[in-house]
Amino acid sequence: MSRPTLTPLAQSLPESVPFVGPEALERRSGHLFRARLGANESSFGPSPRVIEAIAAAVSSVWKYGDPENHDLRHALAAHVAVPVANVMVGEGIDGLLGLVARLYLNPGDVVVTSLGAYPTFNFHVAGFGGRLVTVPYENDRESLAALAEAAQRENARLVYLSNPDNPMGTWWSAAEVEAFAASLPPTTLLLLDEAYGETAPAGTMPPLAIDRPNVMRFRTFSKAYGLAGLRCGYAIADAPAIAAFDKVRNHFGVNRLAQVAALAALADQDYLQATIGRIAAGREAIAAIASDNGLVPIPSATNFVTIDCGRDGAYALSVLQTLAARGVFVRKPMVPTLDRCIRISVGRPEEIAILAEELPGALKAAG
Amino acid sequence: MSRPTLTPLAQSLPESVPFVGPEALERRSGHLFRARLGANESSFGPSPRVIEAIAAAVSSVWKYGDPENHDLRHALAAHVAVPVANVMVGEGIDGLLGLVARLYLNPGDVVVTSLGAYPTFNFHVAGFGGRLVTVPYENDRESLAALAEAAQRENARLVYLSNPDNPMGTWWSAAEVEAFAASLPPTTLLLLDEAYGETAPAGTMPPLAIDRPNVMRFRTFSKAYGLAGLRCGYAIADAPAIAAFDKVRNHFGVNRLAQVAALAALADQDYLQATIGRIAAGREAIAAIASDNGLVPIPSATNFVTIDCGRDGAYALSVLQTLAARGVFVRKPMVPTLDRCIRISVGRPEEIAILAEELPGALKAAG
Repeated sequence: MSRPTLTPLAQSLPESVPFVGPEALERRSGHLFRARLGANESSFGPSPRVIEAIAAAVSSVWKYGDPENHDLRHALAAHVAVPVANVMVGEGIDGLLGLVARLYLNPGDVVVTSLGAYPTFNFHVAGFGGRLVTVPYENDRESLAALAEAAQRENARLVYLSNPDNPMGTWWSAAEVEAFAASLPPTTLLLLDEAYGETAPAGTMPPLAIDRPNVMRFRTFSKAYGLAGLRCGYAIADAPAIAAFDKVRNHFGVNRLAQVAALAALADQDYLQATIGRIAAGREAIAAIASDNGLVPIPSATNFVTIDCGRDGAYALSVLQTLAARGVFVRKPMVPTLDRCIRISVGRPEEIAILAEELPGALKAAG
Repeated sequence: MSRPTLTPLAQSLPESVPFVGPEALERRSGHLFRARLGANESSFGPSPRVIEAIAAAVSSVWKYGDPENHDLRHALAAHVAVPVANVMVGEGIDGLLGLVARLYLNPGDVVVTSLGAYPTFNFHVAGFGGRLVTVPYENDRESLAALAEAAQRENARLVYLSNPDNPMGTWWSAAEVEAFAASLPPTTLLLLDEAYGETAPAGTMPPLAIDRPNVMRFRTFSKAYGLAGLRCGYAIADAPAIAAFDKVRNHFGVNRLAQVAALAALADQDYLQATIGRIAAGREAIAAIASDNGLVPIPSATNFVTIDCGRDGAYALSVLQTLAARGVFVRKPMVPTLDRCIRISVGRPEEIAILAEELPGALKAAG
């Protein structure tokens, strides 16, 4: 029957939900997870001041949020010490990455990323007709050399690097990242995803060189700040690149409570530092549990620990599934050879205790 | 200097914020508005049960929201009595309209709308390279005959109709809208924006003919439900059109508190009915104030009243500006001949009292 038709590009895309949420898994199994350690959230939650700020703002939810995100944008600019013209707020890094794909990708344009890196970025690239060129991880790290080589060879429009990396938790030093950025063609835009930047060792995040027109940084309130449910991230780049977001963004997209919460979270840096300490302790606890069970934890600069289960992807998947059956939600990389690992987010001590309790049995059941 | 380049389409787009928010106006003037009657929000606010539901959920904002919006989607499907496969939740109608433009518009495809209708829709159409073809309003209503004629003549990909209409407040009956839909080419998708549907008289919204592949309905929690700040709207259409959203949507886009709040709002239909009654009373009060001042209120099915100031656009703009200087925020259409009007959202009685107090002086000052 004759009906409205999608664009050829849209027709070519699969209907998908790139991440199956823990809620969907719970609905399928009929059981709630006892330890939610799979989504790299911060179960320490946000600052109590954030909770207060949201509570104080609830009575104003009938008002549209500020489409300019004025107060938050100014606070962020002051926080990272760049002019306001160099900062844009968006609906999480996910939303901003989608806008970047839309702004920069002509059909067929090459985008370079690591095989096994962030699926949502790949979803956006495919969604705007970009052509993904992937390079393998090397020793569980994104390969700066291979990324640069591919970007140069393909004259890539965009290149994506997560530092620290998800899903492996590994990282490069600021100096190494800077050298990488400098080696890229001037027309290749480096998308440097620093979602896990707050939990990384000092010396991991390069200085903000906002006069460099081919680097865009991404940060978020979803991880260390504990606000994954509110969808608020930001981009830092040179002024023309930031201004371009106003060509296409959904202006009321960052909701009123997200703006209020992010502003309060940013103002409580003491709480952030305390959380970072708890995350570091949690990483050590998870690593110790892994070692106690004969597994190899990969050093991590993030709020999760990726653990080498020592055998193939099928085995690691089986470990994940047996953990899930015991009420422990974790995730895992799916691309060989990363797929030999499971990825465990830092949770509260009581959640990590559940992991410690269940892992031996899960490993045994996984065979 | 060599730098990453935007797509030709992106280069052609202006950097803009389509709506200047009241916050921006307040920042410029240095004064807060005493009556916020310009953004068609509901200053009655949401149900107290919504406030409670948000408060109860605040401690879980560290968790990502459900990317499938499962509970809300199911509740909406039950509420409007269609299968779940016919409902999609999104970041407000704005967000959903952007996705539709992306899914359906090839560069140069024609989109038909009324000259002076929703600017954000036009922003999305331009943003995906569509070609807008506009038809004039007729007697302050969108012209169904002219929209249909243009859609047929141009073999339009999309046609937009807001019923009840923003910015005029006027409306067509369900039977007239159904005849309009039936007159469109089967390959033209009608986007029927029913953001103001709850406040319209019975018999304004056609039955949900979800087997009709060329009609998509849009509704929202931003207006009568009083949740503009949370960004939550939904689309109702045939199943293939709904499934297509999963090709491109930002899966975590509807934030956790928005899902919780919308679910609670939907469950309190008594509160909604009470609000609709208060909005109706507010419309009458605003219309009476207009008449008392020698102006002509246009009959409205929405949560605002558009008032014919009886002279040209410059005069109406002057009325708007003098009201703003007196602390009353209203908006106005900008396209002739609609621009002879100002548009006043229903507010709380105390806000309408401020309007009554300030309008005579504003009219005098506007000359």
